[in-house]
Amino acid sequence: MTVSVPDFNIYRTDKALMDAANENNRIRLSWNDKSENLVHLIWLRENCPCNQCRDGEVRERTILLEDIAEDISAISLNITDSGNLEVLWSDDHPSTYHRGWLFESLNEPDASIVQETWDASLANHLPLINGSKIKDELDPAFAEWIEAICRYGVGILTNTPAEPETVKRLALLIGPIRPSNFGYLFDVVTRSGSDSLAFTSDELKPHTDLATREYQPGLQFLHCLKNDAEGGESVLVDGYRIAEIIRDRHPEEYETLTRVPLDFQNAAQTSDYRWSVPVINLNNDGSFHEIRMTYWLRAPQRATPEMHDRIYTALRLFMRLADAPENKIIYKLRPGDLLAFDNRRFLHGRLAFNMDSGERWLQGCYGEREELLSRNRIIKRNKKQV
Amino acid sequence: MTVSVPDFNIYRTDKALMDAANENNRIRLSWNDKSENLVHLIWLRENCPCNQCRDGEVRERTILLEDIAEDISAISLNITDSGNLEVLWSDDHPSTYHRGWLFESLNEPDASIVQETWDASLANHLPLINGSKIKDELDPAFAEWIEAICRYGVGILTNTPAEPETVKRLALLIGPIRPSNFGYLFDVVTRSGSDSLAFTSDELKPHTDLATREYQPGLQFLHCLKNDAEGGESVLVDGYRIAEIIRDRHPEEYETLTRVPLDFQNAAQTSDYRWSVPVINLNNDGSFHEIRMTYWLRAPQRATPEMHDRIYTALRLFMRLADAPENKIIYKLRPGDLLAFDNRRFLHGRLAFNMDSGERWLQGCYGEREELLSRNRIIKRNKKQV
Repeated sequence: MTVSVPDFNIYRTDKALMDAANENNRIRLSWNDKSENLVHLIWLRENCPCNQCRDGEVRERTILLEDIAEDISAISLNITDSGNLEVLWSDDHPSTYHRGWLFESLNEPDASIVQETWDASLANHLPLINGSKIKDELDPAFAEWIEAICRYGVGILTNTPAEPETVKRLALLIGPIRPSNFGYLFDVVTRSGSDSLAFTSDELKPHTDLATREYQPGLQFLHCLKNDAEGGESVLVDGYRIAEIIRDRHPEEYETLTRVPLDFQNAAQTSDYRWSVPVINLNNDGSFHEIRMTYWLRAPQRATPEMHDRIYTALRLFMRLADAPENKIIYKLRPGDLLAFDNRRFLHGRLAFNMDSGERWLQGCYGEREELLSRNRIIKRNKKQV
Repeated sequence: MTVSVPDFNIYRTDKALMDAANENNRIRLSWNDKSENLVHLIWLRENCPCNQCRDGEVRERTILLEDIAEDISAISLNITDSGNLEVLWSDDHPSTYHRGWLFESLNEPDASIVQETWDASLANHLPLINGSKIKDELDPAFAEWIEAICRYGVGILTNTPAEPETVKRLALLIGPIRPSNFGYLFDVVTRSGSDSLAFTSDELKPHTDLATREYQPGLQFLHCLKNDAEGGESVLVDGYRIAEIIRDRHPEEYETLTRVPLDFQNAAQTSDYRWSVPVINLNNDGSFHEIRMTYWLRAPQRATPEMHDRIYTALRLFMRLADAPENKIIYKLRPGDLLAFDNRRFLHGRLAFNMDSGERWLQGCYGEREELLSRNRIIKRNKKQV
């Protein structure tokens, strides 16, 4: 008999329970690898995978916490021949738990992605992936691309069709495109009547996009359609590497950049986006959560003169490091190249170009980092199925 | 002569400078209301609004911090007849600053929206706004709707056309729609082969949507097309009110709900979204940032049994308060009603309904809270122009 699990994932079968016993209001589980777990009764009860406790189709939980007595107990515990756990609860409900699901849920955190920070030396093994044949998300080159964006914050598909809307097709393989005030897709070309410096031929120093938003887009895609103007090379920088350097060598500036909210503003004709947020944002455990640096959208900062001293010192340092030769890669996109990056980690820029010498046309869009992570999990799930 | 400002906003003209003087590496400004400001030199230099320092068209800053000497000084300071400030800088650059821009930038924080928490008594003055005539964002009813969502976290347009895609037209007046794995627009109807409990006829307790995402959608729109089944009333709850009650009366549970990341997961056939985040998320100043509570998407939480005790106690309290008669409003949507809310503040739910007794069809979509704030600022800017 197949024992159901509460979701669509696939769990290991090499672990088996040897024993289960009530102990002081917990259940002690003993595994065939000699490890043990002490399990909370309500936790176990609410994670019953049966079709009464979860929707049989969507597998989302339907049993409510209020349906479970605070003093619920396990009347009987039984280990099946394959090492799964059977419980009869004091509310008369029987539950069967898959050994692999139980072991992984109790012992193995979500295999988080491996991130690797980098400097200019990544130029020697830049993640360039031949994207000419990618038709769907089952393509191995697609998996490589996802892996690169997860690991380095950037991955470049080469040899894709240099045709408008290609970026849409390939970005949608990861997940929904996030529209902004620049539209669903945007064209980075020089034009008059534009609403951003992006649409001039000026140099842009390394930056993230849309720091003025509560939620800076997690992914950005820039697909090169034409690039024969003089100049216009792309600049690639790992924002987490810059943050590492500052953390390790400049503690005062690190304090400022991680603690002081910078005022960003983008007041245009029909929109007025503002957000105040530190340049380097940390997770609870001190690891990097995101970088915010659309430097030309810094608003007139509200601060005391003393605080301004600290802010400008720290900003000068960040900008200098982000633009330093040892930290940046200069790469000229070729038609058909699709540059994809984590816009909340990776800093992108471009050198100025000569509008009269040729044409430069990138087509781009935004996406969400969470879609990248979901896609990465699905790729790993599918590998298990093979 | 009109003095330019660095953006598209409109600044007050009742303030005028009386004096400006160099003082210890700052500039002391004296105003006609007797107030004073001490201004940082680099701050003033980098906020020069001229077309050399900012792009003349998009008005974004082009002067870089690295273009400004760390020891820059003001060679001369002059007050014009209308009380504006003229500076000649040590880099030979002349700047003119509009008195209103200068006063507001130094003294007046971004007029933040006024938020008001509420309980069941809001039913007596529920923000119902006649939306039958809204054609564009200049309509006064549109402004009222925006104001209600900002203030209460919820605003209901009544009498809109009970036709598919109406929700798209009205949501787009606020800003771009955020697509998700449920699509660009989604239909809340009972269907088989669905990928969410939303598409069943079950009761849904007060919740936020998509807590599994790194960025929970900021806005949600639910437009009623049909609602003649028995039951299916909507439940409206102010999540910030629940957070207030817990903060004021249950400090231990508040500690747990604001500090302990809850594991959320939505593993479906083709996606696997996971995020760990506290239920109540605070801004740096301790004010509420967002609520996360898609309770049926709680993953098997990874925690010690002791931590589980704390988590379950706090969750039971939150769910009990969110479902308590004194905190919730029961409102049956009528065809043509468009319920819009801050999905990171407001909890929505529905009572179960009888599929055989009639039809219930809502069409919905997500948006961003930052678009609401931007729209709110533009409405205020336009009022100044009149």
